[in-house]
Amino acid sequence: MQPITKTLITDDCSLNTGNFLKACRRQPTDVTPVWFMRQAGRYMAEYRAIREKYSLLEIVKQPELAAEVTLQPVRAFGVDAAILFADILLPLEPLGLDFEFARGEGPVIHNPIRALADVRALRPFHAEESLSHVMDAIKLLRGELKDTPLIGFSGAPFTVASYMIEGGASREYKTTKLMMYSTPEVWHALMEKLSDALADYLTAQIRAGAQAVQLFDSWVGALNPQDYAEFVLPYSQKVLKAAHETGVPVIHFGTGATTLLPLMKQAGGDVLGLDWRIPLDDGWKLIGHDRAVQGNLDPITLFAPLPELKKRIHDILRRAEGRPGHIFNVGHGILQHTPENHVRAAVDFVHEYHLNP
Amino acid sequence: MQPITKTLITDDCSLNTGNFLKACRRQPTDVTPVWFMRQAGRYMAEYRAIREKYSLLEIVKQPELAAEVTLQPVRAFGVDAAILFADILLPLEPLGLDFEFARGEGPVIHNPIRALADVRALRPFHAEESLSHVMDAIKLLRGELKDTPLIGFSGAPFTVASYMIEGGASREYKTTKLMMYSTPEVWHALMEKLSDALADYLTAQIRAGAQAVQLFDSWVGALNPQDYAEFVLPYSQKVLKAAHETGVPVIHFGTGATTLLPLMKQAGGDVLGLDWRIPLDDGWKLIGHDRAVQGNLDPITLFAPLPELKKRIHDILRRAEGRPGHIFNVGHGILQHTPENHVRAAVDFVHEYHLNP
Repeated sequence: MQPITKTLITDDCSLNTGNFLKACRRQPTDVTPVWFMRQAGRYMAEYRAIREKYSLLEIVKQPELAAEVTLQPVRAFGVDAAILFADILLPLEPLGLDFEFARGEGPVIHNPIRALADVRALRPFHAEESLSHVMDAIKLLRGELKDTPLIGFSGAPFTVASYMIEGGASREYKTTKLMMYSTPEVWHALMEKLSDALADYLTAQIRAGAQAVQLFDSWVGALNPQDYAEFVLPYSQKVLKAAHETGVPVIHFGTGATTLLPLMKQAGGDVLGLDWRIPLDDGWKLIGHDRAVQGNLDPITLFAPLPELKKRIHDILRRAEGRPGHIFNVGHGILQHTPENHVRAAVDFVHEYHLNP
Repeated sequence: MQPITKTLITDDCSLNTGNFLKACRRQPTDVTPVWFMRQAGRYMAEYRAIREKYSLLEIVKQPELAAEVTLQPVRAFGVDAAILFADILLPLEPLGLDFEFARGEGPVIHNPIRALADVRALRPFHAEESLSHVMDAIKLLRGELKDTPLIGFSGAPFTVASYMIEGGASREYKTTKLMMYSTPEVWHALMEKLSDALADYLTAQIRAGAQAVQLFDSWVGALNPQDYAEFVLPYSQKVLKAAHETGVPVIHFGTGATTLLPLMKQAGGDVLGLDWRIPLDDGWKLIGHDRAVQGNLDPITLFAPLPELKKRIHDILRRAEGRPGHIFNVGHGILQHTPENHVRAAVDFVHEYHLNP
């Protein structure tokens, strides 16, 4: 194994200590906190250097490597929160699915879930044993991170189920939707088991030391509100409730989900994630100001010339003004090839906004 | 060339004559009219038989074949409108782009637009000459269709531009958005030329005999409302205005575009298309009842068991009740492998709804 670079979180990075957790709780902050979904990853040269030697799953399964990669953007850009380097599909293998990241193809599940027998064949899942390496990475990170809070995460039941059913990524979610429409008993049996597993996974991360958690329902925007209410909401609610009861802030995120936002709020979350398709102020109003919001820069904006990037970041911050409870973020994960110096500039634009709004 | 099957539009198909055009104008109809985006295509055995002998572009370029394929779903299912069999990318070749449908890869443009010089190099476009085969197919169809109205169509400037810039289909629209953000002068020059060409294309189809037209802005849902207003609206407006001035009804369609609907209405259209992500009544309210609406069945529902399909069609029809101006349709094109008998059943469920709502 590669020796881990000595991690040094400088004073500079912890200047805005506590702002992220305060904003989650809608408490006033001195500046708007900022972190980025997929802030660790291929766009960073430091990460690519590690990926030359290890596969994604090798990194995730070695707590020292996972911790190192998690720390890279914290050291490099001074973001206000770290998010554990992991993958929403990690629970699949312990659940008994034959899962791999195929070269250039993304995730492939060789034995997708199609029938009740497949659901019954899922193995018992105990996150603390099955994914002990994730918990170990969290414990390591809490020692390293000093004052920067650590976010744990999990995929939401719909999004994870869509991979288990389709056998990989999807564009139409045809097999997933048809399971709802044609064999709802199979769907509900799967979601029952899966939501138990994900609730266990998320709370295990909190017990290990995660100071906030995010539930990623990245693909839920493929559904209409009626289907969300019937087939998804109760299961997301179960996972979010389990996390909420631990007392740490819970972020609930989807993309393309404008028409689902009121139902997603009902499902739970102290913070609702917004993508760029809805102006931040409109989205916050739709959700209600009794929740915090996170978002909502189009990740492609991070490739734009810096004056344009600054203008667009300021626009979002302006729309959030007047009340506490905004965490700046992208509306979907940072893309490969994003210039690192633009990510650094974006953090500074957010932190320095109050000086010259 | 294959001899064309004698087209026979039976009385049965023209029972509800005029309902489609009446609904476009928000006039009362005896039953709700129904047609389906991509109602002609690979899911039909009759179409596949023709495609065994001809490529997509060969069909489109031979008016008799294009007309035959256009008529297939009208004969088979008794839909209330025909839509010309064509492709939104047909204007690319006459504009000077090196464009082909690569096997299994979808459209590929070998010389995408990236700089002002590329825009300046676009060839003058006169739809009646450059795409005379499209106009010939329309003339043929008007002779064949009797009382079933014929819809012409074109891609909207944003959606067509995204192919011209990306060089094919896209998931992120990164190059397209970065042209807006980094070199807006190139973007506006392209949209100026392209919207002139598409206005000419759409009005030429009307002059040839199309009795309504639809502008497909299929991918515009990738944008936020501010970018739509600045970079897209004026150009869509130009095309929609040119079509509107001819006096035929104009349908304006996008997907994933809930937050853009008020701006899309401002851009134009007698009818606004809705996808399934917003309940039809909510969408109509958001647009305003001074416009007709088209939609909004999730195309995957057409694979569901017939009782489930019927329930979901009835739900949409119920949400539209109380005022004229609803055209039943899918929220996005019919998918490959859709069972033909389910499409036929869907038409009947819509037409027979008033008997047992």
